[in-house]
Amino acid sequence: MRYTDQLREAAGDQWNRVIHHKFTKDLAAGTIDHDSLKKYLIQDHRFLDSFVVLLASIIAKAKTLEDRIPGCQFLALITGKENTYFERSFEALKVSQEERSSIPNAACTTGFCDLMRSVAATGSLAEMLAVIVVCEWSYLSWGELVLEEHVRKDFYCYEWVDLHSGDYFTSVVEYLRSLLDKEVETMNDAEKEACQARFLETVQLEEDFFDFAMKK
Amino acid sequence: MRYTDQLREAAGDQWNRVIHHKFTKDLAAGTIDHDSLKKYLIQDHRFLDSFVVLLASIIAKAKTLEDRIPGCQFLALITGKENTYFERSFEALKVSQEERSSIPNAACTTGFCDLMRSVAATGSLAEMLAVIVVCEWSYLSWGELVLEEHVRKDFYCYEWVDLHSGDYFTSVVEYLRSLLDKEVETMNDAEKEACQARFLETVQLEEDFFDFAMKK
Repeated sequence: MRYTDQLREAAGDQWNRVIHHKFTKDLAAGTIDHDSLKKYLIQDHRFLDSFVVLLASIIAKAKTLEDRIPGCQFLALITGKENTYFERSFEALKVSQEERSSIPNAACTTGFCDLMRSVAATGSLAEMLAVIVVCEWSYLSWGELVLEEHVRKDFYCYEWVDLHSGDYFTSVVEYLRSLLDKEVETMNDAEKEACQARFLETVQLEEDFFDFAMKK
Repeated sequence: MRYTDQLREAAGDQWNRVIHHKFTKDLAAGTIDHDSLKKYLIQDHRFLDSFVVLLASIIAKAKTLEDRIPGCQFLALITGKENTYFERSFEALKVSQEERSSIPNAACTTGFCDLMRSVAATGSLAEMLAVIVVCEWSYLSWGELVLEEHVRKDFYCYEWVDLHSGDYFTSVVEYLRSLLDKEVETMNDAEKEACQARFLETVQLEEDFFDFAMKK
């Protein structure tokens, strides 16, 4: 069994709660409560910067040019098409710049930013990958799950599903998982434990994040 | 005067020798000796990987998302269109994989790889920028200088000029110079000295590199 499959198993039912969350079902169906979506987008956009730091650090720390190239291309997408999705959604949902800057960080946002920046600064390549694999793999998993109930009405709903499903995004997740599967071959038990701890910490934050968005 | 202009002045006439080099004149005119071009491309491609590490490290270490975004887009170009330029040129110039792997590193190649990796691993953001600013700014300077004598016959000549001239590449150089100009505002004398040392070391390597390619 692949190491990343073992990690997912270690997350147990929490992984399923994340990928079958009401938030993503409602998002895909286009029935998502706009207040929930706004809450989510405002906070999610806040850790885009930390995410970029994490991915750039993975690129710098990977072993070969071949291991770096798909990460570089994904980084360009994240800071291009994905960044403009946020800007366009804020405009369509009438979220003002003032509203965005006056709302404090949710605990899960601060948790995500701290985790990403701290593994980027001091973690091993495997720990960095453990965090990013959860972020991207869990999103791909719900993205693929909701494709059937997927309604193409509001771009701020369907475009978020598009960005997290399909052949290209599947290849990104496979790439990140493969890098982590390869890293583990040379890791000792303590390093594996640290890596798993980061993985589980990130799954917890993903669940907290969707719960936070849906909370009235 | 901008800090980066001061650095260029500190390089004195060496800067002009680099940007007016016979190598780039012959390349633009399409009269470049094929052995020289092969020598150059084989060695230049060798530090692409170190260059990617350096640029990814700059992205990770920059201060804001706005400061990171143009770097991310340039990184995608470097690992996309620019990487395929090498592959296509090796094919057109009949440089076999065997030839590429059997030829040892030139001293200037090892010098460049070591410099890029060591500033990426332990240098300040300003030192990292000093190295990359020389690489890109000197290339833009010769790229713009040779545009008039520019012959559109062999893609491995004109495409290398295209990649290092024009509006987009000008914006990349301006972006990198601006980041460095901004960094210096908070630097003490010792830090400025370290930064200038990296700048001058890189100019020396650029001259060595073109000289190496033209040497019979």
